[in-house]
This record gives sequence, C-alpha cells and structure tokens, in this order.
Amino acid sequence: MSLIGIDIGGSKIAVGLADERGNLIDKKRLATLVDLGREQVVDSIKASAWGLLREYHMSAEDVEGIGIGCGGPVDPQRGMILTCPNMPGWDNARLTEMFTDEFGAPAWIENDATAATLAELVFGAGMNVRGFVYFTISTGIGGGIVIDRKLYRGSTGNAGEFGHQVILPDGPPCTCGGRGCLESISSGSSIAKRARRECFDWPSTVLLHWVDGNPMLISSEHVSRGAAEGDEFSAYIWDQAMNYLGIGVANIVNALNPELVVLGGGVTRAGELLFEPVRRVVEKQTMTGLGGLVSVVPAALGDDVGIVGAVTVAMQRLGRLDIAD
Amino acid sequence: MSLIGIDIGGSKIAVGLADERGNLIDKKRLATLVDLGREQVVDSIKASAWGLLREYHMSAEDVEGIGIGCGGPVDPQRGMILTCPNMPGWDNARLTEMFTDEFGAPAWIENDATAATLAELVFGAGMNVRGFVYFTISTGIGGGIVIDRKLYRGSTGNAGEFGHQVILPDGPPCTCGGRGCLESISSGSSIAKRARRECFDWPSTVLLHWVDGNPMLISSEHVSRGAAEGDEFSAYIWDQAMNYLGIGVANIVNALNPELVVLGGGVTRAGELLFEPVRRVVEKQTMTGLGGLVSVVPAALGDDVGIVGAVTVAMQRLGRLDIAD
Repeated sequence: MSLIGIDIGGSKIAVGLADERGNLIDKKRLATLVDLGREQVVDSIKASAWGLLREYHMSAEDVEGIGIGCGGPVDPQRGMILTCPNMPGWDNARLTEMFTDEFGAPAWIENDATAATLAELVFGAGMNVRGFVYFTISTGIGGGIVIDRKLYRGSTGNAGEFGHQVILPDGPPCTCGGRGCLESISSGSSIAKRARRECFDWPSTVLLHWVDGNPMLISSEHVSRGAAEGDEFSAYIWDQAMNYLGIGVANIVNALNPELVVLGGGVTRAGELLFEPVRRVVEKQTMTGLGGLVSVVPAALGDDVGIVGAVTVAMQRLGRLDIAD
Repeated sequence: MSLIGIDIGGSKIAVGLADERGNLIDKKRLATLVDLGREQVVDSIKASAWGLLREYHMSAEDVEGIGIGCGGPVDPQRGMILTCPNMPGWDNARLTEMFTDEFGAPAWIENDATAATLAELVFGAGMNVRGFVYFTISTGIGGGIVIDRKLYRGSTGNAGEFGHQVILPDGPPCTCGGRGCLESISSGSSIAKRARRECFDWPSTVLLHWVDGNPMLISSEHVSRGAAEGDEFSAYIWDQAMNYLGIGVANIVNALNPELVVLGGGVTRAGELLFEPVRRVVEKQTMTGLGGLVSVVPAALGDDVGIVGAVTVAMQRLGRLDIAD
C-alpha cells in the first residue's frame, strides 16, 4: 500500500509517492500556474500522481490515503481551503473531494505549515524535543507549534500564523489585506517584489544582468545569491529582510519560550546567509534567558518537508503515528 | 489558616491577606519607592503584612503560605527574581527566603503576569474556557498563556513575554535593552513618558493644567482621562498607544488562535477607551476566522488580579487547586 502527498504552494506544487511508513519513493514538481485557473492546476496534479503510480506499477487500489498541504487557513473537517491569498480563485475549494473522487481513497487537507510541522515532529528536527515552533519561509510565511509532542492547533485550528504578525505598522501591503506583516517583508515573494521595484535605482546590480534586464524575472534566489556574491544592492535588500525575519522569530520566542525553532521553506535554501542573521537578532531581541537558550535550525527534511508533511497528515489520520492528534 | 499574597509592581505594591480558599480578606497598597533601595522596600512589605495579620488577630503561625508576584523573568525553583528592568537593584534577589525567614511559612515567587493568568484561570474570566491568553498592561507589559486549562510555561518557564515583541523596529528604547517593543510604546510608563516629552509642543493641553505645569507629574491615567474628555494632545498620544496595543494583541491572536484574550493591569482601568480600539485593531489585523472569533475582555478580578494571583500561586504550590501544574 502507498500514500500520496500533495504540497500546493504559491509558486510550486510537489506530488510525492510514499510507502505506508512514510518513506518517500519518488516525487514530481510542477509550477503553480495560477493563471490557468484552479481546474487546470488540479488536473495537472492528478496527472502527476497518476504518472508516479504508473511508474511504480501501482493502481488507484494501491493508494491508501492522500494528504494535501496548502497555504492559507483551511478547514480540515470539511476538506476545504478557506482563503488562499497567494492563489486567487481557490477560496472554498473542496480539494479533498476532488482527489477522493479521482483515486477512490480518503483524502485530508491541512495548512501547509501545519503539515510541515507535523513532518518535522515525526521525522525531522523535532524528533527528540518536547516542543518547538516551525516557520516556513517560501512564497508566504506560515508556522506551526508543537507542545508536549503534540501539534497545538488553537481554538479554531488556525494557530501558527506567524507570517501575519505586524512588524512594520506602516509597512508594505500584505496579501492578507493588512500592512507590514512579516510575510509582506521577509517572504520569498516580498524579497523578489522589493528587488524588482528598487533595482531601477541600482542599474549596476548583478541582478539585472542575471535576468537580461527584465526586473520581473528577479526571484528571491537571485537576491540571496547576489548577496552571497557581494552585490551591494542584493545585500541591502537581503539584509533588511533577514533582520525583520529575525525580529519575527524573536517575537515568537518571547511569546512561547520554545526549546527549538525550525526554519524551512524555499528561502531557507540560502543557508547560513539566512540562519546567521536570524540567530544574531534572536539572541539580541529576546528576554534574558530566552535567546541564548533556543536553537534555530533548518528543517531536517529540507526541500521534501512539504511533501513529507502532506504524507504525514495522511498517516496521522490513518492512525499510523505514535503521537496525539 | 491564611495566605499572604504580595504583588510587587514597578509603581505599586499590594499586600493581601486571604483565607485558605483564596478569598481576599483585606489588602494594603503602597508605592514602590525604588529609590529607597530594596531592603527598605522589603521591610515596608513585611510591615504591611504584619499590619494585616494584627488587624485580623492573627500571628505568623496562622500563615500557611506566601505567594509573590513580581515583574520580569523569575526563577520559581530558586525563589529569585532574575532581572527586573523596572526595578534596578532587584536582580537576583532571593525574595522567597526573606519572607520565609520573617513569617516561618513557605514562600513562592512567580512572574506577576504568570500569577495573574493563574488567578484569572481559577477565579476569573478564564474559569469557563479551555484556553486563553492574558496581557497585563501596567508599568510594563507582560503576559501568560493557558492551554487546556493548564498554564503553559515554555521550555525554561518564561513564556508569555508579549511586552517584548517588537512592533516598531526603530521605535523608542525599551527597558529590556531593545527598541520598539510593545512595552516601550503601550505600557503605562511609556504612555506617560511620551506625554511628558511631547507636551511642550502642546502648551494648551489640559494635562499641563492638571499637573500645575510640571510635566514630570503626568501619568498614563492623566492621558486616558484627557483623551476621554476630548483633549486633543491626550487623544493623539492615547490613540497611538492603543493602536499599537491592538497590533500586539492581534500578533498573539495570529500566533496562538486563543478562544479568549484577557487584559488586566492598571492601564485597563481606562475601560472602553482601551477595549474599543484594541478590539477594532484585532478584528482588522487577524487572519480570516481568527479576529471575529476571539473575545477581548477585562480581567474579571479587576484591580485585585495581582494580589489574588500571588495568593493563587501559593494555593497551587500547596496543592489546593484542581488544575495541573
């Protein structure tokens, strides 16, 4: 028997096939072509999943469960995305139904950060601690909280919205409708947006060279690479984003006094360029006894944290995990 | 048998005498005369406690336990204040020892916000909910977290430092050494400080009239009263502080998705002048489904929350409470 994990992000979608113990067998990645509309995107996810099954000589009967991770608040009970600021047109989509109908197996949905938190708890950096907080820093910024080896979901299941803490009250507009949220400053899409907007004042930046002069092609990966290679403009954009990210992490450390902070998501691929400034700010901005005691580490599952997260959600619902709900 | 509760704040100290079930019999309030030095202040607390005992014809033998609530991170195990930014000279004071030696009864110390949270959980606004967050807004700003009817203390016992979340990264200096913490903007002392500094530009403000022209006498109570009475300068200072307080509460709601937010401490005496703007900002700045679902209410124990909190700490340690540690 096997499990399918689907990680739907604002820029990329990953579909994974795992064995019944959660070991990833294979995965496929596709771009989230939001402009094509929801139906088309869902069809391409289904096609990827079918492709994986065929490749490993499996059929729908071999699928025991399907886990879906998705940005934005979701309603796990009703199997719905509630609102997805990074993907217009996906609000109130009954995603689980679509996949259950296709594969004849039960499907469950979770906020992607919640799913990733669960994966890090069971298989990753959180395996050996009582509690930790998880930040996903990718197109958006989300989070999850583990207390006493249990996912803390909050009173209506939406705890961990670390990306929508306001860091700059008069800062940039955020996809949530607010201003100056951490997500509007330090997410991958915000870093790219700011670089695109301000590069006109820095005509000699290497970024414009890398994108053949088209600012719309600048990504946050370009900015971190530029910063690593000593490009002044890239370093200016990157350092500010990292400083605010550090403040956002420190705020959560001050509130929750966790044993461990785990950072995952595409932007964390920058490695020490991200972890060094974040650790420095956390140490400085936290109350006595907190900053020095907390470790800030990368997601142990790396790039697979989203898919493994989705698979872990299915395992949990199938009663395969040795942790509380 | 009776219990003594001592609430040591940056501006005021309250000493209470309670029966063994935690009912407050009587209380005394004194100013925290920080300048007199720690020993003098401790002596005056002891004198107040002796005064209360004598008044009710009790002796030290009637005292079963002593609870102490105090600002700043504490070490409950060792009975010490760790650092108390609002009270210079109190760092590492072994307070419990001083009171145990005086009254021959066991004494326990807790962060004042933690103690108040416990009091609201057992006797106050949190009696009938599974979980809530508590903010104390007085000289400083502190907080506490209750999850599943249990105080959540974090990995080293210092969770709930909501006052040291950074709201304005380049904002005013904070007692913790940082800048732009919520405490440096919306606490009673910060509101007073800002009014004192800026009143020179508003010579016709009623505040200067109330303090006979001496800005150093302006308090946050003056500012809230001025705002209530339509003084333009007071409203300007007050509204900003409340807007940021709302953001600070919203950030915690986004992170923890609590059922209830309880606000206590001296500044909340302003009533609707505080609750209305805070509720409005929380509704606006929280993610879908969060702001509309959370109630923001005053501490049910009102001004006594600090003393009852200290008493509740003693009751908990004596095993008198029907809640988990």
